[in-house]
Amino acid sequence: MTQLLRVQNFTVSRDGFGAGEHQSLERPFGDADPRELMAWAMATASWPGRTEPGGSRGLDDYFTRDFAHDIGAEIMGRNKFGPQRGPWQDHDWRGWWGDEPPFHTPVFVMTHHPRPSFTLSDTTFHFVGGDPASVLAQAREAARGKDVRLGGGVSTIRQFLDADLVDTLHVVVAPVELRAGERLWESPDELLDRFHLDVVPSPSGVTHHLFWRK
Amino acid sequence: MTQLLRVQNFTVSRDGFGAGEHQSLERPFGDADPRELMAWAMATASWPGRTEPGGSRGLDDYFTRDFAHDIGAEIMGRNKFGPQRGPWQDHDWRGWWGDEPPFHTPVFVMTHHPRPSFTLSDTTFHFVGGDPASVLAQAREAARGKDVRLGGGVSTIRQFLDADLVDTLHVVVAPVELRAGERLWESPDELLDRFHLDVVPSPSGVTHHLFWRK
Repeated sequence: MTQLLRVQNFTVSRDGFGAGEHQSLERPFGDADPRELMAWAMATASWPGRTEPGGSRGLDDYFTRDFAHDIGAEIMGRNKFGPQRGPWQDHDWRGWWGDEPPFHTPVFVMTHHPRPSFTLSDTTFHFVGGDPASVLAQAREAARGKDVRLGGGVSTIRQFLDADLVDTLHVVVAPVELRAGERLWESPDELLDRFHLDVVPSPSGVTHHLFWRK
Repeated sequence: MTQLLRVQNFTVSRDGFGAGEHQSLERPFGDADPRELMAWAMATASWPGRTEPGGSRGLDDYFTRDFAHDIGAEIMGRNKFGPQRGPWQDHDWRGWWGDEPPFHTPVFVMTHHPRPSFTLSDTTFHFVGGDPASVLAQAREAARGKDVRLGGGVSTIRQFLDADLVDTLHVVVAPVELRAGERLWESPDELLDRFHLDVVPSPSGVTHHLFWRK
């Protein structure tokens, strides 16, 4: 079986931004409001952060529950892991997700600054340098035959696209405007030379873009 | 966690028929051609019967690969299991699916005619009488906390709908006309008093109907 590299449930604004400017400890998405960007997933029955019963079980729920389907490892950029830049001042920061991160697999955080691995519940974070191909090789080995999720953010996804390592991308375009920040694309058409594309509007107001390699 | 009863990937013609007339050993779907009805799923990368690499990874693939997601047991009618009617003449018939059935869980075949359970690979078939509620109770117990799939055919789905036991239904309307056979509905609107509905046209030509309980 092929081990795919998959972008899952990555959400951008109508104008193509995955996060706003001014990321900080208080604002992981910078000037963007994650509750606006992720409203489509938070309304579903399968949203992992759901604390009350209920939630929709229509189209958006399929994508939300597919997040972990056959995934054995995640790769993320350092800015998805935390707001720090440069060498680690200490190792107190353990990600945004509390004691039960939603990954449940090894996670490879790409950074030039080494740091020991650590484990929270069933998620282990590794900190790795090197180019996308070598990071992907490590993640594939850790995934034990399953696929690897490319978690973002934008600059990490673009690096792997530039290296032509991405097999499928699910990008959700949310009905909000950001105007500044980290931009994934001017238009989804930029990827059509290398990918097939299904464009699927959801009744919730977002539009799912499903790319797979030609 | 609630254990749902879910209809997954059940495909009907544009005029609402799930199978044609004249089911036989040679024609499990009767006058209907399963390759026409199921073309949407057979074209995807996740189709279990795929023998060559390739296949689409767009919208239809999400539904195909969700078939087994969090499912711990299946309930099916006797006509989905085989073409025989009345008391079993012998126990040679072991289903349409060969030595590796695509269920991988206990399967409860509803029939008035008792027969011993048997196992093929990781699928065990049980033959059970009783009303839908009692069959569902047995399947729930066997599913060990996971959901139960209601596999069809049409008359089995209608029995469970009449008993108001179905939590979600994914019905795929394929661009073919059958004109006769087992009819699921005149129109999907018949279910709107009890279910929410997302209608999602696929680029492949089918239309996915996603119902979940109000």
